[in-house]
Amino acid sequence: MMIVMKEGATEEQIAAVVERVEAAGAHADVSRGELVTVVGAIGDREHVQNLGLEGAPGVDHLVPILKPYKLASEQYKRGERTVVEVDGRKIGGSHFATIAGPCTVESREVMLEAARAVRDAGAQLLRGGAYKPRTSPYSFQGLGDAGLKLLAEAKEDTGLPIVTELLDVRDLDAVAQVADVIQLGARNMQNYTLLTEAGRTGKPVLLKRGLSATLEELLMAAEYVLKEGNPNVLLCERGIRTFETGYRFTLDIMAVPVLRELTHLPVIVDPSHAAGKRSLVEPLSLAAAAAGADGIIVEIHPCPEDAVCDGPQALVADQFADYLRRVEAVAELAGKQLETV
Amino acid sequence: MMIVMKEGATEEQIAAVVERVEAAGAHADVSRGELVTVVGAIGDREHVQNLGLEGAPGVDHLVPILKPYKLASEQYKRGERTVVEVDGRKIGGSHFATIAGPCTVESREVMLEAARAVRDAGAQLLRGGAYKPRTSPYSFQGLGDAGLKLLAEAKEDTGLPIVTELLDVRDLDAVAQVADVIQLGARNMQNYTLLTEAGRTGKPVLLKRGLSATLEELLMAAEYVLKEGNPNVLLCERGIRTFETGYRFTLDIMAVPVLRELTHLPVIVDPSHAAGKRSLVEPLSLAAAAAGADGIIVEIHPCPEDAVCDGPQALVADQFADYLRRVEAVAELAGKQLETV
Amino acid sequence: MMIVMKEGATEEQIAAVVERVEAAGAHADVSRGELVTVVGAIGDREHVQNLGLEGAPGVDHLVPILKPYKLASEQYKRGERTVVEVDGRKIGGSHFATIAGPCTVESREVMLEAARAVRDAGAQLLRGGAYKPRTSPYSFQGLGDAGLKLLAEAKEDTGLPIVTELLDVRDLDAVAQVADVIQLGARNMQNYTLLTEAGRTGKPVLLKRGLSATLEELLMAAEYVLKEGNPNVLLCERGIRTFETGYRFTLDIMAVPVLRELTHLPVIVDPSHAAGKRSLVEPLSLAAAAAGADGIIVEIHPCPEDAVCDGPQALVADQFADYLRRVEAVAELAGKQLETV
Amino acid sequence: MMIVMKEGATEEQIAAVVERVEAAGAHADVSRGELVTVVGAIGDREHVQNLGLEGAPGVDHLVPILKPYKLASEQYKRGERTVVEVDGRKIGGSHFATIAGPCTVESREVMLEAARAVRDAGAQLLRGGAYKPRTSPYSFQGLGDAGLKLLAEAKEDTGLPIVTELLDVRDLDAVAQVADVIQLGARNMQNYTLLTEAGRTGKPVLLKRGLSATLEELLMAAEYVLKEGNPNVLLCERGIRTFETGYRFTLDIMAVPVLRELTHLPVIVDPSHAAGKRSLVEPLSLAAAAAGADGIIVEIHPCPEDAVCDGPQALVADQFADYLRRVEAVAELAGKQLETV
Repeated sequence: MMIVMKEGATEEQIAAVVERVEAAGAHADVSRGELVTVVGAIGDREHVQNLGLEGAPGVDHLVPILKPYKLASEQYKRGERTVVEVDGRKIGGSHFATIAGPCTVESREVMLEAARAVRDAGAQLLRGGAYKPRTSPYSFQGLGDAGLKLLAEAKEDTGLPIVTELLDVRDLDAVAQVADVIQLGARNMQNYTLLTEAGRTGKPVLLKRGLSATLEELLMAAEYVLKEGNPNVLLCERGIRTFETGYRFTLDIMAVPVLRELTHLPVIVDPSHAAGKRSLVEPLSLAAAAAGADGIIVEIHPCPEDAVCDGPQALVADQFADYLRRVEAVAELAGKQLETV
Repeated sequence: MMIVMKEGATEEQIAAVVERVEAAGAHADVSRGELVTVVGAIGDREHVQNLGLEGAPGVDHLVPILKPYKLASEQYKRGERTVVEVDGRKIGGSHFATIAGPCTVESREVMLEAARAVRDAGAQLLRGGAYKPRTSPYSFQGLGDAGLKLLAEAKEDTGLPIVTELLDVRDLDAVAQVADVIQLGARNMQNYTLLTEAGRTGKPVLLKRGLSATLEELLMAAEYVLKEGNPNVLLCERGIRTFETGYRFTLDIMAVPVLRELTHLPVIVDPSHAAGKRSLVEPLSLAAAAAGADGIIVEIHPCPEDAVCDGPQALVADQFADYLRRVEAVAELAGKQLETV
Repeated sequence: MMIVMKEGATEEQIAAVVERVEAAGAHADVSRGELVTVVGAIGDREHVQNLGLEGAPGVDHLVPILKPYKLASEQYKRGERTVVEVDGRKIGGSHFATIAGPCTVESREVMLEAARAVRDAGAQLLRGGAYKPRTSPYSFQGLGDAGLKLLAEAKEDTGLPIVTELLDVRDLDAVAQVADVIQLGARNMQNYTLLTEAGRTGKPVLLKRGLSATLEELLMAAEYVLKEGNPNVLLCERGIRTFETGYRFTLDIMAVPVLRELTHLPVIVDPSHAAGKRSLVEPLSLAAAAAGADGIIVEIHPCPEDAVCDGPQALVADQFADYLRRVEAVAELAGKQLETV
Repeated sequence: MMIVMKEGATEEQIAAVVERVEAAGAHADVSRGELVTVVGAIGDREHVQNLGLEGAPGVDHLVPILKPYKLASEQYKRGERTVVEVDGRKIGGSHFATIAGPCTVESREVMLEAARAVRDAGAQLLRGGAYKPRTSPYSFQGLGDAGLKLLAEAKEDTGLPIVTELLDVRDLDAVAQVADVIQLGARNMQNYTLLTEAGRTGKPVLLKRGLSATLEELLMAAEYVLKEGNPNVLLCERGIRTFETGYRFTLDIMAVPVLRELTHLPVIVDPSHAAGKRSLVEPLSLAAAAAGADGIIVEIHPCPEDAVCDGPQALVADQFADYLRRVEAVAELAGKQLETV
């Protein structure tokens, strides 16, 4: 932590800051510039911040130096990249993987038809929501347990591992029985109960970035899972909120290369929720692959017009294989090898 | 819902839209402009949106007409304003109330000293967190149960009703035993489990706006509480995230008068978390009162330098009474009467 | 400037950074923490940043320490506040002033009627636009020269000094002949040609914050005016762009107290453009006064329904005096004395 | 324009709205839903908005239906795409083109060396700034006229057409003499003087999106150029401002496919300014090509460490050809044919 003093801070004020830093058990290192003096406090970020130095006489502002996450940081694995393996499918490092399926589990027929399209196209994992977080209490909230059963049947039928969302900690056991990857949604990125409990299951966790979460906050959320001894976290960029009203969210493609510099964890992209509109899904998917994403998670539906939820953004199932070939071709140009089971 | 067709949409495309709208059980009303045709669909917003019409041939975009919240809307109470009453203290309508206390319950001495300062200054409710949502898993997470006991003791000592945060649905009973008002934090504004369960307790719920939540989303979150038959929701503006890096959050003062037009629910402002810095708390408090807020929730500490958490933004307890007089003077100018118990 | 090295940066990399800093004529000050080394470069911000050190091996990121503005900084006047005086009216320090008038100069009758309402209510300056920046090339662009003439007549008639906007450097002489204060709009906050030329006139400059400008950028824009030897800059907060779609802009009320800490320049608030809607103008005006603003600039119109531009946000002229009394009462509570000419 | 009435609006209020719409010469079309009545006003957007209906009794809000731009709209050319041709190089439609060069013209040697690297790599146009918009008045503002002369010499030497920025309308003739494409920077996206005058030169205009401009505003800015009879506008996405502090700007990759649906104009991407950091430039360039961009504009420098301005984001000139091959390979996968002169 660097404590930047105001121009004109007095010697007494500087000495008082040094004293407070040292009283907190940190070492104080004073740099005097022509206009401004900076006191370096070597110690724990949180601790030093809580000394109340921001309000202290003569203090202009504090600058954190250390990154607040440890287990998630690129340095922690000294350059080695995490490869998450789910039932033989690899995601991360040089491995590109695709997760596809309907937004919501809505019926046996639709679920099985979608699952087979995912398998036939050669994607690696199957997604589908049994519990749905909905902005409105009057909207369909998912089939719940019945949805989990249909996911289990789709897995049995196709052999595809399942990615599904956990919303309520009281559903943890039920979800963990079916899920091969537990998804935590954007609204729950800072739901510390869910992060911790999902971490304790030991199952891979797909963690979506919150709508206005910084990358540092996303990595801190991942840290909650990692500190439970669970190294298998997939980070997911799914669009952030900006002033633009022309589309639902703004896909933050820069998050992909930047996260690859900050962390060893795989980074996947959800083009469907960002776009909210089918015609944008393919360009965004190609962009994600080109930017170096480790995978994509995308919504498909046998008949999007009839989908209970988010139909307008779902790819049509019978066009999915062609789409996937184009995405994979770009991923290969960007240096990925493709997963074939 | 209005379905705006593209320029050059064909008669067949318009007819297809009308057919889809009517098949969904809604009435279709076609307006033909010189350049553009608009199909009005009179029916449920969610339903029409899910027809997949956004992707349909000839459709440009959809415009929702009805507000998606009902119980929270200003019209629902035909202009009457909700006054939440907590142990004789009124918030809302013409009543202005102040909630104050330390960020975190950290020790018996600090809690009692702060509580007495709150009471002596004539504020109406006491706040304090036993469970703290922390960005970092390595930060102090609150005293938990022991913190709840100290809150109960402070209530016993001062007679002040308690506002405290619920983080984990599994703590619901313990929190509800002590809390007179259950606080749901910004990170949990869309935690539908908590919203529903807090709603079911029947206790007043103080609902903080998420960091990048729209007012419509805030009202939809309130709707989750209201639909459980619990009419006592306090909305709280606490700063939103913008591009500005000069302060922690940007207090959205416009939310105050706009919410007063959209909803009958009381609107309070948290100047402390927005500011992150003591010197800004008073100007923001005065601005909140001037803009018509129904109350404020503010952090105080007997000795902010020693606070475990967020000391730099806490008001000094022994200056609190003077500050409160100034806030109340502005609230009176803005048309409020003051609560005296 | 602080150069934060990566964890694991080698001694060679640190030495290379030190060498580059010193080659640039700055002094290098090395602080070694347990995990991270920081090199302090004492010298010009811009210069050090341009060494390309952000890309250099072992460098994690750069942290600027010095504020980039000088003449605008609070320290520059050692705590003394700038009071801008316009024809006997004072703005800044303990002086609160109101600038009011129609958005656009649209006709002789409207202009004179509005001007008289401004004068009669006891406001200090008269505003009105002869040149209007319009998003659409098909919108009314202002009366131009004819508008300037009407402003001159209104000044003659009422004795009020004139605030009017400069859009095109080629209009500088014409505008400067009529304007007592030259307004530079939000879209032109970083139009360096206009800033410099307006600065050279020596006339007070009312500088509006850009829609997504940081406070630092606003102060840097002011610096362009100040460095021409013109000390009379009025900063104006007029709403920023956020994700919220419920209102046109989000008035950043925090900018008021924060700017008062950063700079000696007066800070005024434009509630009309932020709100875009009459019913919000008064609550925002009161909030601005409460937060410590040095003045407001507000739109009024004798008959807003007939206004050529922005009628829905204009206050009705014959209600203006009552509104102004309420704003002034709050400004007095916030410590201001009122201007009476 | 749709005028959405409040729930509970009276028949008198509806009739008054209809009357105002018709008095303005538009046709009013009333749709009565169960809860809400909507009045469609068929006529000019700006006009109807200016009736002051937003403030009118019983009116909830207005919804514009028509897009406010005409010449820039996709419909205007009935699906045909604009291909801008500069000295034989084509941009737009199926043509992908690369514009490269140093940020600033800083010396004869650097300019010529960079220009030759651009030509040798097979890029289509040469960029370089003689006039630089700088946040700080104390920063290097460009070589001005001398810089234009060096650009002319580089063009003579390499045969590459020149893209350079116009900042001040008083420099128009000098810039137009050298520039084959006139660049208008992000800060000047709504500088209507420059837009109009650049439009009148008839030269192609490269128009950068403002830091917080919506796509609609970008297209309205283009409309200012187009309405002068100049059809050759290149739109440029260069990163927007968000809450994320981990990078300078957030490249809005979604703007690429969305603009391709909204307009016939070519869309290019500037990965350098968004990134601010060399290591991000290639992933962003590949993402741009994958998303369907019609070209990129990228900064290169023979020796970025020595660059006067923005060195950290410049690609190293002698690695440029390899980089360009990778970008072009992705552009081909995305359906583009490559320009070879």
